[in-house]
Amino acid sequence: MSYLEQIASPTLLIDEKITRANLKKMANKVQALGKKLVPHWKTAQSRTIGNWAKEYGIQEVTASSISLAEYLCGQGWDSIHIAFPFNIREIPRLNRIAAKQGISVQVVNAATAKALAEGLTEKVEFFVELDAGYGRTGIQETQEAELEAILSQADGSEFLKFKGFYIHPGHTYYGKDTGKIHLESQEALAKMKAKYLHRYPNLVTRLGDTPGCAVRSEFGEVDELGPGNFVFFDLMQVQLGSCTKEDIAVCLAVPVVDIRKDRKEILIHGGGVHLAKDVLINEDGSKNFGEIVMLHEKSWSIPSHRSFVKSISQEHGIVQASDELLASVQVGDLLGILPVHSCMTADCMGSYLSLDGQVVDHAEGAR
Amino acid sequence: MSYLEQIASPTLLIDEKITRANLKKMANKVQALGKKLVPHWKTAQSRTIGNWAKEYGIQEVTASSISLAEYLCGQGWDSIHIAFPFNIREIPRLNRIAAKQGISVQVVNAATAKALAEGLTEKVEFFVELDAGYGRTGIQETQEAELEAILSQADGSEFLKFKGFYIHPGHTYYGKDTGKIHLESQEALAKMKAKYLHRYPNLVTRLGDTPGCAVRSEFGEVDELGPGNFVFFDLMQVQLGSCTKEDIAVCLAVPVVDIRKDRKEILIHGGGVHLAKDVLINEDGSKNFGEIVMLHEKSWSIPSHRSFVKSISQEHGIVQASDELLASVQVGDLLGILPVHSCMTADCMGSYLSLDGQVVDHAEGAR
Repeated sequence: MSYLEQIASPTLLIDEKITRANLKKMANKVQALGKKLVPHWKTAQSRTIGNWAKEYGIQEVTASSISLAEYLCGQGWDSIHIAFPFNIREIPRLNRIAAKQGISVQVVNAATAKALAEGLTEKVEFFVELDAGYGRTGIQETQEAELEAILSQADGSEFLKFKGFYIHPGHTYYGKDTGKIHLESQEALAKMKAKYLHRYPNLVTRLGDTPGCAVRSEFGEVDELGPGNFVFFDLMQVQLGSCTKEDIAVCLAVPVVDIRKDRKEILIHGGGVHLAKDVLINEDGSKNFGEIVMLHEKSWSIPSHRSFVKSISQEHGIVQASDELLASVQVGDLLGILPVHSCMTADCMGSYLSLDGQVVDHAEGAR
Repeated sequence: MSYLEQIASPTLLIDEKITRANLKKMANKVQALGKKLVPHWKTAQSRTIGNWAKEYGIQEVTASSISLAEYLCGQGWDSIHIAFPFNIREIPRLNRIAAKQGISVQVVNAATAKALAEGLTEKVEFFVELDAGYGRTGIQETQEAELEAILSQADGSEFLKFKGFYIHPGHTYYGKDTGKIHLESQEALAKMKAKYLHRYPNLVTRLGDTPGCAVRSEFGEVDELGPGNFVFFDLMQVQLGSCTKEDIAVCLAVPVVDIRKDRKEILIHGGGVHLAKDVLINEDGSKNFGEIVMLHEKSWSIPSHRSFVKSISQEHGIVQASDELLASVQVGDLLGILPVHSCMTADCMGSYLSLDGQVVDHAEGAR
């Protein structure tokens, strides 16, 4: 039985071959540069895909939340990093992980460092996150006193250990000056490393974001790279030039529920609760919530005539269909949709189906 | 112990008193008009909240998906309606529900009616959905032949039973001409009822959407009303004039992880995976992903000085904070966020915590 016959309702498909190729390519690139790849597992959120990653020499991962760190705990990772300004209400959960597993967190203020120093009962490392310049989060260059206050908490603690500096240059997602932004981040990390290496001889610097890590081939003195989305890629990454549509490793299989040939529209069972609502803007100003691929026995293919999801609501999507697609599609058929933002789609769906019909796990996320 | 001490991570709070008041107000209004209220349970997605609803005489509900219908099956509802153009790949699941429970679906084309007539082994009613004029879904006035083809499938079937006509005038969400749109929908339903009542003497008409049902007080000959969002309301409904902020029955409790007094910003653990990414636009053109309320022992309160979530990413949110909020908040505190779109937030979170510390259930949704 083909996996297609298993599908009655919207289902997130994963192509293991493409996923492995993405993992291998990034692992080889980073290794060739003599650096360590610590992928951000917020995209895949999977133990099984984690086991694939380990085959390419990946030994540490990054989690987006303590729930995900709990899910990945005890799965053979040398260390798990929670790349989020630590929420001190979660110290008891952190201690439970740290009792079993190498773990690090991220700190951006002295209040958090103090609460950790007081509340930890197990060894926990931390990165100080530096502001990448787009004002989301992180210590700024002018906050030298705050940084010293953080480090002094760690210096006096039995359990809280300073590991190094981290930058997530998330503004590369706005698609401008990826090279320039990455270079600035590298330089900021190099400067901090030069300044603090004598006090902390083992400190490392880590830089993470898929557009930068995919496009660039030179990372200066940075020790570790932490991209996430590259495991699956998505249409946003295609637009940013990080990959091609052929590199996208997941697609949402959706049933066709109505066809309107007069309007060249196909109504699908697949909406905001499945895809999330991330959107790209087409050249003509119209919206694009995902692009159609054709599903086959063991693969999917990108049609030469483009069809895309032009609007979505909670459960519905409307596809603007090419003539070629309209000529062949019937009510009850399945179509595939390449997602705009694969991290969010995977988080909505909560599991994957492989093209040989196996369920692949995904953490429960916010639930 | 207050519910507040239970919270370490982002948690969706529900105020039972506000929820019950919203249910009671709509139930009384619809009953006074001599009509039947069949609320759309895609918002609450909860068995417990369903039991509250039954106390106000509500006996039928609407589901957004077959998964939700399965979740609500056997909970004492007279009938469950799946308000989505039926996906024929789900006929086996539909038969399993129909063996236990009154159930209806929605049909917009003859291909679907034919598949149902051929595949049903239990009695299932259906509404024909009429196009409300905003082009998402439904039979159009010009599609008389298609409608006849649907009805003839039912006429010849032992199990597939025509129940009536349904309109969801979702374009009232665009905030213009709610009264006019509702009136057009009422008239379209009345026209179809007049035309088909002699053939189907028990046929009913149903109209559903919260803005229209909340704002209007006259629904003509429509038999049944099916709003959903009114159970919780949200900031979008406040903007549409359906309710006030005091009527919003859910808020997301989020831990404060950093404070930037120089930028008047508070970084919270609460992002797209918790709130969803629905957004309103402030008067000055800036974005609003939710508004801050203050959490107390047994309630929350709306501060006189507004603070709002100005940007979100997967796990983070940045609050544009009032001076009053900045003066009192500390790292590790909890804030409440009134959601922009409560249906999506509840779907992301997957459960509620009541203000007396009880977990209230929510269906698994897409998962």
